Amino acid sequence: MNPTPSDAQVAALNRRIVLAARPEGAPRLSDFRVETGPVPEPAHGEVLLQTLALSLDPYMRNLMDPVGPGYAPPVALGETMVGGTVSRVVASRHPDLRPGGLVLANAGWQDFTLSDGSDLLPLDSGSAPALPPSLSLGALGMPGFTAHVGLLDLAQPRPGETVVVAAATGAVGANVGQLARLHGARAVGVAGGADKCRHAVQVLGFDACIDRHAPDFAQRLAQACAQGIDVYFENVGGAVLDAVLPLLNPGARVPVCGFIAHYNGPMEGASATDQRPALLATVLQKRVRLQGFIVLDHYGERFEHLRRFRERMHRWIDEGRVHAQEHVVDGLLQAPQGLIDLLAGRHLGKTVVRVAEA
Amino acid sequence: MNPTPSDAQVAALNRRIVLAARPEGAPRLSDFRVETGPVPEPAHGEVLLQTLALSLDPYMRNLMDPVGPGYAPPVALGETMVGGTVSRVVASRHPDLRPGGLVLANAGWQDFTLSDGSDLLPLDSGSAPALPPSLSLGALGMPGFTAHVGLLDLAQPRPGETVVVAAATGAVGANVGQLARLHGARAVGVAGGADKCRHAVQVLGFDACIDRHAPDFAQRLAQACAQGIDVYFENVGGAVLDAVLPLLNPGARVPVCGFIAHYNGPMEGASATDQRPALLATVLQKRVRLQGFIVLDHYGERFEHLRRFRERMHRWIDEGRVHAQEHVVDGLLQAPQGLIDLLAGRHLGKTVVRVAEA
Repeated sequence: MNPTPSDAQVAALNRRIVLAARPEGAPRLSDFRVETGPVPEPAHGEVLLQTLALSLDPYMRNLMDPVGPGYAPPVALGETMVGGTVSRVVASRHPDLRPGGLVLANAGWQDFTLSDGSDLLPLDSGSAPALPPSLSLGALGMPGFTAHVGLLDLAQPRPGETVVVAAATGAVGANVGQLARLHGARAVGVAGGADKCRHAVQVLGFDACIDRHAPDFAQRLAQACAQGIDVYFENVGGAVLDAVLPLLNPGARVPVCGFIAHYNGPMEGASATDQRPALLATVLQKRVRLQGFIVLDHYGERFEHLRRFRERMHRWIDEGRVHAQEHVVDGLLQAPQGLIDLLAGRHLGKTVVRVAEA
Repeated sequence: MNPTPSDAQVAALNRRIVLAARPEGAPRLSDFRVETGPVPEPAHGEVLLQTLALSLDPYMRNLMDPVGPGYAPPVALGETMVGGTVSRVVASRHPDLRPGGLVLANAGWQDFTLSDGSDLLPLDSGSAPALPPSLSLGALGMPGFTAHVGLLDLAQPRPGETVVVAAATGAVGANVGQLARLHGARAVGVAGGADKCRHAVQVLGFDACIDRHAPDFAQRLAQACAQGIDVYFENVGGAVLDAVLPLLNPGARVPVCGFIAHYNGPMEGASATDQRPALLATVLQKRVRLQGFIVLDHYGERFEHLRRFRERMHRWIDEGRVHAQEHVVDGLLQAPQGLIDLLAGRHLGKTVVRVAEA
């Protein structure tokens, strides 16, 4: 006999949050809709997964547009919103995956889903003291790995160099700054508001953090980067980039992982004049290396690169050298408001939706 | 006794072309002035150089602006225009440099200059059949080396990939296309006018060359790059970049060596709307590596990197695998008109001023 879901699981309904309308500008609650349906049954070779924690990330806004960002298809109207999850195997007809095990999955915004196992990374408890499983969606998962690939693989900061990152208290930025410090570089953050800047310096250990709402923001950034900027980890675009460009040192590296400033509309934060010639002139004159990357490209054969990153990061968190801050949203039905708040910057650290008890 | 200049040389006057006025937009003849003065005498450790051939290059326009491009100081009003030269040592108080020898130098727009030898590359005749010394200003010099560094060191085209270069019949572009072909890539040129396009395909061996004045230019470029663009060697900016961006393949490399379209004024060719967000979105979505470089950075310890490049390129030219086209301007006093013509694209190949008989 194949293992089957318990009665309790069969009795439960699957709640899905689907895309109800394509947002214009910032998403609204009316752009989402809750649907319920039966819990699906695994076919031969499949597992049934229950979502414990759902990751909310800025890229999700891109997938709500009719034309996707190129590296992933858009979510169709009426389809379940996509997203990374920590899930529990609750039933298995897969030879290698046992019920009860935790996996990193892509279940999306719903309680249950099926998988053939090919996109799952089993989360071993290992020998180290247990960390909250949801960290696999943040410092130990995609956002932490994004910081790792962009900063260490691509930008390669040297000791004493100055690394600047915006959204410094966000899921990616917090890891960029802490990894820069661990590699001997100076970390200068940019964040929205005094509270976030204090958190960046006092909790995350940034050398400085500048409030981007300050009227003299560009001047204060220049003062904090008296030796110029060697690495700018680009994740916001807009006015921060304007202030960074004149400060870049010759040979500066600019890994490009996203543009939160532009996600709610392509022209938000755009200048009235064409800034492209000036950007290209800076790239030439300062011999800048500007490199876009999509972290999905870097997971490697059967997640090997991700696995090695997770081992190292796990150790740093255990040793207290990396602080993994979470912003927890309580309950699947709160996910739409959680994404709206994330895009508006009303969060500190990695935004995670707690869907079910671990 | 130290060697001294011959009577003939002492009797000659040194003609210098100096910057008389800073151009607004395209330079005019009135922006230059000829001055004459005595031929300078070498001090201990110095050589006196006579200019045989002067290189004219687009970067010279940048040095005429009050604020330089960053990698080199601007030419001051009343100062001699700078430029690379093939020069003959006509008198020497330097231990290693004999009268009569040819050197690659930076004498600028004048008949004679002094050097302590540190910026000179002696031009050995070697065992290969003699090539015109002026080729050391073109295919065997800075423009050829610019193509080599940008294409082979930075972009690293793979066999079967598509390489696009604008100003395809210019000093740099012609070498980019020919080097791309030699390394098994497809070379697609962009040039201004049917004659230049024919030259690119029939003489230089490009797989295709598109006239940028054609009304359906973007469409024709797309047709010539049916498999997309893997390497775009950026040396013009403006409308060509607009047409290239949508065709870039994932992982495309874009070495950036200049922007002829912008040299006569920073906003020439600029769009009415801000194209920077769209450029950065492409960099991200297509994982593009955009890398500025200044060829001066790559000459290496005592020109070692340049020397190795010259050996290889010399062989390719000897074997007929690289065609080195020159556009010769006759006489130092024609240099101002020569630069004006160069910036307007009224040339084919490398522009060289013949200053004295070799």
